[in-house]
Amino acid sequence: MNRHSAPRPAPPHGLRRRAYDQIDPRARQGRGLSAFNKAIIALVLLATVIAVLETEPALAHRYGVPFAVTEIVLGVIFAIEYALRLWSAPERNPTRSPWAERVRFAISPVAIADLAAVVASLAVVGGSSALMVRLVRVARILRLAKLGRMSRAFDHMVEAISLRRDELLLSLAAGLFLMIMAATALYIVEGAVQPDKFGSIPRALWWSVATMTTIGYGDVYPVTGLGKFLAAVTAIISIGFIAMPTGILAASFSDAMQRHRQAMEGAPAHRDDGAEGC
Amino acid sequence: MNRHSAPRPAPPHGLRRRAYDQIDPRARQGRGLSAFNKAIIALVLLATVIAVLETEPALAHRYGVPFAVTEIVLGVIFAIEYALRLWSAPERNPTRSPWAERVRFAISPVAIADLAAVVASLAVVGGSSALMVRLVRVARILRLAKLGRMSRAFDHMVEAISLRRDELLLSLAAGLFLMIMAATALYIVEGAVQPDKFGSIPRALWWSVATMTTIGYGDVYPVTGLGKFLAAVTAIISIGFIAMPTGILAASFSDAMQRHRQAMEGAPAHRDDGAEGC
Amino acid sequence: MNRHSAPRPAPPHGLRRRAYDQIDPRARQGRGLSAFNKAIIALVLLATVIAVLETEPALAHRYGVPFAVTEIVLGVIFAIEYALRLWSAPERNPTRSPWAERVRFAISPVAIADLAAVVASLAVVGGSSALMVRLVRVARILRLAKLGRMSRAFDHMVEAISLRRDELLLSLAAGLFLMIMAATALYIVEGAVQPDKFGSIPRALWWSVATMTTIGYGDVYPVTGLGKFLAAVTAIISIGFIAMPTGILAASFSDAMQRHRQAMEGAPAHRDDGAEGC
Amino acid sequence: MNRHSAPRPAPPHGLRRRAYDQIDPRARQGRGLSAFNKAIIALVLLATVIAVLETEPALAHRYGVPFAVTEIVLGVIFAIEYALRLWSAPERNPTRSPWAERVRFAISPVAIADLAAVVASLAVVGGSSALMVRLVRVARILRLAKLGRMSRAFDHMVEAISLRRDELLLSLAAGLFLMIMAATALYIVEGAVQPDKFGSIPRALWWSVATMTTIGYGDVYPVTGLGKFLAAVTAIISIGFIAMPTGILAASFSDAMQRHRQAMEGAPAHRDDGAEGC
Repeated sequence: MNRHSAPRPAPPHGLRRRAYDQIDPRARQGRGLSAFNKAIIALVLLATVIAVLETEPALAHRYGVPFAVTEIVLGVIFAIEYALRLWSAPERNPTRSPWAERVRFAISPVAIADLAAVVASLAVVGGSSALMVRLVRVARILRLAKLGRMSRAFDHMVEAISLRRDELLLSLAAGLFLMIMAATALYIVEGAVQPDKFGSIPRALWWSVATMTTIGYGDVYPVTGLGKFLAAVTAIISIGFIAMPTGILAASFSDAMQRHRQAMEGAPAHRDDGAEGC
Repeated sequence: MNRHSAPRPAPPHGLRRRAYDQIDPRARQGRGLSAFNKAIIALVLLATVIAVLETEPALAHRYGVPFAVTEIVLGVIFAIEYALRLWSAPERNPTRSPWAERVRFAISPVAIADLAAVVASLAVVGGSSALMVRLVRVARILRLAKLGRMSRAFDHMVEAISLRRDELLLSLAAGLFLMIMAATALYIVEGAVQPDKFGSIPRALWWSVATMTTIGYGDVYPVTGLGKFLAAVTAIISIGFIAMPTGILAASFSDAMQRHRQAMEGAPAHRDDGAEGC
Repeated sequence: MNRHSAPRPAPPHGLRRRAYDQIDPRARQGRGLSAFNKAIIALVLLATVIAVLETEPALAHRYGVPFAVTEIVLGVIFAIEYALRLWSAPERNPTRSPWAERVRFAISPVAIADLAAVVASLAVVGGSSALMVRLVRVARILRLAKLGRMSRAFDHMVEAISLRRDELLLSLAAGLFLMIMAATALYIVEGAVQPDKFGSIPRALWWSVATMTTIGYGDVYPVTGLGKFLAAVTAIISIGFIAMPTGILAASFSDAMQRHRQAMEGAPAHRDDGAEGC
Repeated sequence: MNRHSAPRPAPPHGLRRRAYDQIDPRARQGRGLSAFNKAIIALVLLATVIAVLETEPALAHRYGVPFAVTEIVLGVIFAIEYALRLWSAPERNPTRSPWAERVRFAISPVAIADLAAVVASLAVVGGSSALMVRLVRVARILRLAKLGRMSRAFDHMVEAISLRRDELLLSLAAGLFLMIMAATALYIVEGAVQPDKFGSIPRALWWSVATMTTIGYGDVYPVTGLGKFLAAVTAIISIGFIAMPTGILAASFSDAMQRHRQAMEGAPAHRDDGAEGC
């Protein structure tokens, strides 16, 4: 992918091309993020902090106006950003028709999320219902997901994890199986003693999840001797439930590093671009 | 294993042979699960969800009839599945007598569990005692264990773990030893202050398990200065208790991956330097 | 060590030599545990279970006599075992004077612990003070430590860990440093609000340990906004505090396995003993 | 670095040079810590223990005088140490002007922290305000940070971690993102039911941190069915949040060990096959 796109950014023809280079993180391989995208990241983080803080009644009352003003300003900026992305979208693939490329961009999940966030930012006024207000806030916070797109290292980590997807899913399945078994056991043993907490398997599952993830809120725990014994066995097994995915990920990252190092050592000979690993 | 068994499924003589190929996951090496087994997995998961949900009184009252109907339908399907497995069992080893092979299948733990689940599914009516009802539900949930048999990756993980069995058992033993020591220490220090919680070593063990697995329900914790100091030492040591099996599993998975990679690299014919794996 | 002792067990002269081969786990390299030692392990585990259970008042009242009888029988058996070890001790190093070797055995920590456990087992009668009774029970439970001596794999794991001792101690030191810092921070922020829980650094350390080991009993937690913010930062850092030793141990076990595999691969050529790694 | 600096300490001219060799840990490459620095470490640890303990009112009342005396004595010793470091600072780089070197030392963060700790130690008398007293205590405890400077292994671990900085920061960012998402979800679902605990995203974040780090204090947990379901999903995902950095660190330490071993093996002159590391 790196190699084929190398010649493309060479002749930057016109304003739209230069704008595209600034806007799309994929347009600048190996040269880090553009100033434009760094500013967008800072603004997304700022918008998230505000969206989080303004849900706090105490702060919302006191700083209602500055919050609203900032939200509107950020909404306008993100609206302009969206318009620029839409306008420069054809540069992604100059061989296709500009409008086809723009439609393709507009219906991509990322662009829809962007548009929703813009609308949400500008919907700050209007005294809508409590639920509506909450959903609008979620839309604003979801803007954070944009940042994933910016990071190349993110893709590499996702790749390293998805290579071991089968093992990870299997250990998740084994964990869920043990959770259901533990919940069933405690439901039988403690169901009659604490009916509100272990009176059904779904109720016992809440205990089972809190135990096997080692969270242990302490709102639910067995009180009979046998219940405690079974809970202790579950607790000890739960260490394996945590150790398993950790071990798989450790092995996967270790393997990726070693493969990368081998590639680096093997590279010097006759290779013209050596663009791997970035 | 794959190579030697390849010629076997080649001439599928008759209906029973074709049924066996669909039914036994081991009959289709390397070709994934058959449509029949995929359907069975979906039905087992559905039956589990129902068996879990119908223990909840609120749901059982409201959806009693649909639950009962689904259970009976599933019971009939699993009964047919059991009959098909029994009927096609001789195909597993055509050189032996069909009935000997059927008896061998019928007395295998998996088949007994299947039969118990079928009986349990069909025992949904009849107003039996509360305990009986609970055991029947467990039998239904245990059907989940059937799924393990379906997954080849599961066998590989079990193998990877069992190769390090000694180390894992040893770290488990060390953990149990530390649990008993910590419980004994807290029993001596806090036994007089909180007799209901630390008044005996078995009681203190409940605290010890909750602490060393880092669950920390919060129903039991030391209150004296010395008790808290010893609990803090136990808590810090417990990190090692979790780190140990994780480290062993990570190393084991890592080793398995590298061995696999070396085997892949070593396969092509003539290699002069033997530089694999570095 | 393996190589030098190989010729020794060859001519088993006399009863004492045969007894020693049965008694000392180190006398039978590579041949597993002797029947004598397997029996001792079972008896130690049984004695531990009894020593643990008889601290429970309910059980002690009901099964007082059987507990006492079993303790005395076990005490006599362990006394005989101690006498046999003392008697056969000279076989360990036949070139030295028998009594010098016996004294050397008697003053070894393991033998002193054994003797203490024997005395403790036989001190079950006599109506001594509550504290004395408790210490006697601890002595009995400490017999468990004998089992470590039996396992060769245990030595290997201890070795693998001690090779990374510096890193593990350093991460422990870093963890303790962070614990003190977090406790100091919460003492300053929450000390005035919850004086009984954060009113001094030692008090705040109890919170800090429960948080950084992710136990979280829930008896102590910050209530102010700033306190919660600092606690959240501490909680997130604490993941590193757990990840560090796990990572070190994983790397160490992985390294040990790979070294072992290299030794195995390199061995075939011209090596006369190849006794490493067992 | 070791090799180039070797000729420097060879001709120890005068008292200041010998003092410098004792005082600066970097002056004695590969020869461990000097007796002077070992004594300083012991005194720093002692001073920390005292600074921690004297915050406890019960102890402060009872041992007020011994604490004060020890603090003053330690303060004087650390003052002398500071003076010696300042005096011998020019030996670090004999080619520069002595006073320039001393100023460079005096404005280094470590020296400023040292001076603050000295002042804090001597400010033990004077009945200042409660907050002032607390800050003084923190300054004393921060002396612990001096010890990091002493350890060469510390630098190596920091290096190993910073090599994987990007991955660790990324998994931290992913974790924070999930925390905000989980808090937002619970804020929407449980906000109306438990307004004091989930009534705003910042409040829900407290739950989210306690859950995703698996601490689970138990002061905040969902009570509705949907809230519990979302919390269970969050709890299971949080295992990955802990497994990720552990896996990265394990891989990084493993890689460092292997690189080190290869370097050791690669050092001897002529090797023909390059079979290292497999």
